[in-house]
Amino acid sequence: MKKHNFSAGPCILPQIVLQKAAESVINFNGIGLSLIEISHRGKEFIEVMENARSLVKELLNLPEGYSVLFLQGGASLEFLMVPYNLLKVGGKAAYLDTGVWSSKAYKEAKLLGEVNVFASSKDKTYNYVPKNYKVPADVDYVHTTSNNTIYGTQLKEFPKTDKLLVCDMSSDIFSRQLDFSQFDLIYAGAQKNMGPAGTTLVVVKDEILGKTGRVIPTMLDYQQHIANDSMLNTPAVFPVYVSMLTLEWMKSIGGIPAIEKLNEAKAAVIYNEIDRNPLFKGFAEKEDRSLMNVTFNLVDESNKEAFDKLWSAAGISGIKGHRSVGGYRASIYNAMPIESVQILVDAMQQLEQQVLK
Amino acid sequence: MKKHNFSAGPCILPQIVLQKAAESVINFNGIGLSLIEISHRGKEFIEVMENARSLVKELLNLPEGYSVLFLQGGASLEFLMVPYNLLKVGGKAAYLDTGVWSSKAYKEAKLLGEVNVFASSKDKTYNYVPKNYKVPADVDYVHTTSNNTIYGTQLKEFPKTDKLLVCDMSSDIFSRQLDFSQFDLIYAGAQKNMGPAGTTLVVVKDEILGKTGRVIPTMLDYQQHIANDSMLNTPAVFPVYVSMLTLEWMKSIGGIPAIEKLNEAKAAVIYNEIDRNPLFKGFAEKEDRSLMNVTFNLVDESNKEAFDKLWSAAGISGIKGHRSVGGYRASIYNAMPIESVQILVDAMQQLEQQVLK
Repeated sequence: MKKHNFSAGPCILPQIVLQKAAESVINFNGIGLSLIEISHRGKEFIEVMENARSLVKELLNLPEGYSVLFLQGGASLEFLMVPYNLLKVGGKAAYLDTGVWSSKAYKEAKLLGEVNVFASSKDKTYNYVPKNYKVPADVDYVHTTSNNTIYGTQLKEFPKTDKLLVCDMSSDIFSRQLDFSQFDLIYAGAQKNMGPAGTTLVVVKDEILGKTGRVIPTMLDYQQHIANDSMLNTPAVFPVYVSMLTLEWMKSIGGIPAIEKLNEAKAAVIYNEIDRNPLFKGFAEKEDRSLMNVTFNLVDESNKEAFDKLWSAAGISGIKGHRSVGGYRASIYNAMPIESVQILVDAMQQLEQQVLK
Repeated sequence: MKKHNFSAGPCILPQIVLQKAAESVINFNGIGLSLIEISHRGKEFIEVMENARSLVKELLNLPEGYSVLFLQGGASLEFLMVPYNLLKVGGKAAYLDTGVWSSKAYKEAKLLGEVNVFASSKDKTYNYVPKNYKVPADVDYVHTTSNNTIYGTQLKEFPKTDKLLVCDMSSDIFSRQLDFSQFDLIYAGAQKNMGPAGTTLVVVKDEILGKTGRVIPTMLDYQQHIANDSMLNTPAVFPVYVSMLTLEWMKSIGGIPAIEKLNEAKAAVIYNEIDRNPLFKGFAEKEDRSLMNVTFNLVDESNKEAFDKLWSAAGISGIKGHRSVGGYRASIYNAMPIESVQILVDAMQQLEQQVLK
């Protein structure tokens, strides 16, 4: 039976990427060696790294002056690297709190300086994105989280500020058109839209670095990683290569404009059903709904067993909601086909027929 | 033509491991999903992680009281994590300097406290391991590097100390029998004997942690990683899985005692040739020679072109020496078959015949 994998991450990748990735483990580009047994200093892997970095710049339509890095440690290590690299000694940072991941981010910043959480939606279990806030003016940078996987919310607007604007885009990078040049630093764990777990994308404007007066440990220093072309030490070769393949796939299907259209179509199919079907209700506020993670609950919890049987029988997996929200979460990242979303909608409609018959 | 890959790392892995790794990228354990698209919180991957950790304990014959972690960032991030977790506020650390990697390690420790480099072999481009040193008594820990890839040296004895003993075993873990319980903390990047680049093994005695009086950032705190079973954030799923496969392979062929015998046999074949063949000389002092990285030079550099042609024609790759040492480096990690070592020796003998005919 065909599987429909709605996992929140690590998550579905395009079949063609999986095929090429598997081949590379046996024989990389026909060189007679496995990708995972060659030196990262050899010309074969250097080409992979350079190609991946240049595809990121192209897909995000970045102007000159940005560096692209593939690091390790996930967004969680970036929570520490961001203040290490941007928070001046004696300085202050501003954080927009839209969920657990934002909170984890500012917890690390607090180790290095003062943090101003200038708006939060914690009062309603983060089911909306704060608006009409005043962005602090006396800070070194403003930190945001563009998409909140657990709650299914997504920022449609970003803070207007003349300070450095930082964004954790782990769960929606490459999914929608944005003016990426409004950001001074973007970071994202690979394991949603970009590739397998194990590498972290960092896009940073060069001119903002080296200005904190802080001594930065080598591995936490963006400038050191930039000076070494993301190879300060051995990079995560396989995750970087599979990310490169996924970036190539994104380009081949038309880049972010084409991907955004597909994502909007997929999201419409499931959100329309949530709003139409009397047995379900959405979790996130409508205006803040995410195109990536669709959170919804049963109106009547007693239908849980019947619904779980239906989607499970249809080959669906990974839609259990996060424990802090309950219910269901359908993650519909870039590589998710609309056909799989339709299968889920079919299961929702079958439940309706069962219950109302 | 069969390839003989002597790369210093990332390096050769067993063929059976590569086969299973490739299969898992398409269909992991027959579940109909790729390993790299499933949730790390699902039972399938949790089993992988638990199996990998328990295999490490078994192969290293560790007593109770040790935790095993699979982290990210390579040994280079451990250079920072070690002092963060073991160096007391106002404390001191001792480092044995046996090469560039030791030096990089104590550079990070210096950011957090006083460092005593109690012995160094830098005076002779690290071609020997210092001995007859006095281990400082007024330190929190003593740091060593068990094998020095660039120079081809290996520690046969470790410092005797009642302080915490730390060892970077990136390039020789699982290659020889040692009393691993003499160490309080062992770390190793995966990409030599354990798996692909992208995960770092840490083995740590639980009771030594939490005693520095230091506030430790979340991702740098071993106790946090232990409390979360190496899943404080998304682990490097593929590198951890392939490491598990390699650990299974090591167990299946008889564990470290059997591997050590094979490694000794392989090393004897090439070192004997270096010592016999008048055209070559070894770089490292004989008593400190590594079983993993064999460094040697031509006595007469004018034979370089002829020798390079010979090994290249034989399908050999990855034996160029590090720029700081020159000459050649044959890395003969666990998965390297003795047949490949013999091919290299054949090339050395062919050169002898050419030059002396």
